[in-house]
Amino acid sequence: MAKPTPLSGFPEFLPEERFVEQQVIATLARTFELHGFGNIETRAVEPMDQLLAKGETSKEVYVLRRLQADPEQGDAGMGLHFDLTVPFARYVLENAGKLEFPFRRYQIQKAWRGERPQEGRFREFTQADIDIVMKDELPFHFDVEVARVMAEALSGLPLPPLTLRVNNRKLIEGFYRGIGAADPQRVITIIDKLDKLPQEKVGELLVSDAGLTDKQAEQCLGLAAISATDTSFVEAVRALGVEHELLETGLAELAAVMEGCAGAQSDRFSVVASLALARGLDYYTGTVFEVFMEGFEFLKSVGGGGRYDALASDGRTTYPGVGLSFGISRSLVPLIARGHLGASRKVPSAVLVALADEESRPASDAIAQQLRASGVPCEVAPSAQKFGKQIRYAERRGIPYVWFTTGHPDEGGTHEVKDIRTGEQVAADPATWTPPTEDLRPQVVTKEQNA
Amino acid sequence: MAKPTPLSGFPEFLPEERFVEQQVIATLARTFELHGFGNIETRAVEPMDQLLAKGETSKEVYVLRRLQADPEQGDAGMGLHFDLTVPFARYVLENAGKLEFPFRRYQIQKAWRGERPQEGRFREFTQADIDIVMKDELPFHFDVEVARVMAEALSGLPLPPLTLRVNNRKLIEGFYRGIGAADPQRVITIIDKLDKLPQEKVGELLVSDAGLTDKQAEQCLGLAAISATDTSFVEAVRALGVEHELLETGLAELAAVMEGCAGAQSDRFSVVASLALARGLDYYTGTVFEVFMEGFEFLKSVGGGGRYDALASDGRTTYPGVGLSFGISRSLVPLIARGHLGASRKVPSAVLVALADEESRPASDAIAQQLRASGVPCEVAPSAQKFGKQIRYAERRGIPYVWFTTGHPDEGGTHEVKDIRTGEQVAADPATWTPPTEDLRPQVVTKEQNA
Repeated sequence: MAKPTPLSGFPEFLPEERFVEQQVIATLARTFELHGFGNIETRAVEPMDQLLAKGETSKEVYVLRRLQADPEQGDAGMGLHFDLTVPFARYVLENAGKLEFPFRRYQIQKAWRGERPQEGRFREFTQADIDIVMKDELPFHFDVEVARVMAEALSGLPLPPLTLRVNNRKLIEGFYRGIGAADPQRVITIIDKLDKLPQEKVGELLVSDAGLTDKQAEQCLGLAAISATDTSFVEAVRALGVEHELLETGLAELAAVMEGCAGAQSDRFSVVASLALARGLDYYTGTVFEVFMEGFEFLKSVGGGGRYDALASDGRTTYPGVGLSFGISRSLVPLIARGHLGASRKVPSAVLVALADEESRPASDAIAQQLRASGVPCEVAPSAQKFGKQIRYAERRGIPYVWFTTGHPDEGGTHEVKDIRTGEQVAADPATWTPPTEDLRPQVVTKEQNA
Repeated sequence: MAKPTPLSGFPEFLPEERFVEQQVIATLARTFELHGFGNIETRAVEPMDQLLAKGETSKEVYVLRRLQADPEQGDAGMGLHFDLTVPFARYVLENAGKLEFPFRRYQIQKAWRGERPQEGRFREFTQADIDIVMKDELPFHFDVEVARVMAEALSGLPLPPLTLRVNNRKLIEGFYRGIGAADPQRVITIIDKLDKLPQEKVGELLVSDAGLTDKQAEQCLGLAAISATDTSFVEAVRALGVEHELLETGLAELAAVMEGCAGAQSDRFSVVASLALARGLDYYTGTVFEVFMEGFEFLKSVGGGGRYDALASDGRTTYPGVGLSFGISRSLVPLIARGHLGASRKVPSAVLVALADEESRPASDAIAQQLRASGVPCEVAPSAQKFGKQIRYAERRGIPYVWFTTGHPDEGGTHEVKDIRTGEQVAADPATWTPPTEDLRPQVVTKEQNA
């Protein structure tokens, strides 16, 4: 066939790029497991009626059919999942009798959306979700826990500075009720436009569309203007002079999340109480989260989540949950495409075992096996070219060491290993030699983020 | 919604079952990387014309369409891949200019087939493939390498005894030519039926359908009867008195694979030169492989592969390859369903940090963070129930240790950790205590395979 061309919206990585993604996934998984989150994978397909329950995404779903479907058996009604929350809710219901609650799970999988591709918006993408789900009642401290776990996981990644923005639906709804707004949900929807429209325009909409007075609109904009990296937002909200029980609950919850995440604050990772954050989705009932990446604001959020008091329900039991999702493809694909992230070499091999002639291949294979027994990834030269060419073979792949055997090892020959970056060549024993730890496996290389 | 029911052919694991799969994948990946194989993932979809190029599977392909596809933009012509070889061949052509050859890659992903589900045959399944691909010419020693790497990887898995059966298309084709068969491919197809039909019936078909004489048919059956765990098959074939240049090449190649895999032979893993093995697929041109699992012969093979002299071609350059595929779902789903494989606990947590009262949650959280800093997965009790209930919480999940703090640690309180399996409770420092290595993470538990 002719040379195929990439398919728009379906990003693929070269092996050295995939290595970066693997490392990011491994770092996330390790942190999640340290906090007791177990992994699951769900099937790629869900019944269409499940997928369409979230109306807004209906047009983005990929529907499946078997090429030569047997009409009486048809797979009609199946589609690819567009997130990991819908399948997770179904999984919880389906396996409720076999799961232990609170159920902490992480899930790192692909999802598919038929939307128009653009940078950071793909038709196939990988995301990492954590959720804690309970039966009937989920105590609030789990909101603090998921925030802290995701903050800790994300702050371990080789990414540009990230910001976890946090807010609380009870806080803003209580505030809007406290000022006497008739339709708090409508106010939330309008305030959510602050990232697209100028503040003045949003203020006008609050008056014209949500029926607020000028004073009420001003109070709402005042609330939305508050942000803080600690609990000082509480005083700032109180200074606006609004009182409502729900507002108090929300303030206490948001303060608890901020206190719980204090340990994750650094110059590479901020947690910000951001009182403009609303997340339009109306299934969030308390804490809401969004994640942003410095210098990549055009991607909008690279993660998000929150508390939903009814993640799933089978009519008898309700399963409340709280969770956070991080867009692995959304963040990594642009970073890798722009050269901000890469790997220190193209292959796992730390050593190329040179080959003197084709007859000595079994001897070179045996040396390679000795190195592997010590955990050193290596490969044997594909052919017995001149050593200069074998060294260039290693160079092209970024393999740091080449192993030479002079004479036959069974007859007093000697082993030497050359660091081809420095040219230094030293005697070595294949049974015991290992490279410095930083050379053992490829490393993720980060370049200046403002390049 | 009502309690959902599982979807036939789309197996899903509980968290403790998924843990087994994760460990299997990690073991395979580690071995592949030690041998210099880099990982890639390809998108789930391929153009239908690519998928249908392999005619036999056409009716099993899942076709995609966007629910509300824009006719002028349509995704028509896309389907889910049914193996990892077709996407890999496309990936090699698409990225040939950016890849280094020989290109060693492993790929562990899901694939989809719309076939009728049965045990071990799924509509969604995970497989692990390794391949080595070259431009123009792929030296034979790579056949030995992929066999050895997969043998080493599989023999590290907690599975019932596996057998890697190996044969060589040149050997059998040369043999059939040597005895004067007019249509060797026809003979191969008939010999391939030996696992379904009695030998006598196959002999009759060789005469009636492949036009062989009784003597020739007998020679073919004689060849197919040969198997050996070493290179003794060479003499057994020679004893049949057939001569052909291609037969000699095939004998030498198969002997080299057997010698190369000698180190992987054990009581849990056999490599068998099996001269009945043909693999009907006509794109194999030399070495062919199949993997079988003891006690699970009804699954047929749980893996397979071989050498293809034209994995891919763009008209100017041909890319020969050799590879092996292992069916992770095909082998693990039946083993887990029958209770042969499981995990030592349901959650990653090695420790449950007990909670005296809700006010001391921050103190318990701080202890948990100290343990995590030493790499100990742990969780804090969800509520301040009586300690007996907290211990039962740990027991139900298989968490081996419960951490107690008596008195307030800032005021001379003491820390104690209880092994709830033995009841032993000892003083411990959260900054330095770690459990024995075997308790740090869940372990894969294998039960009697003949249960």
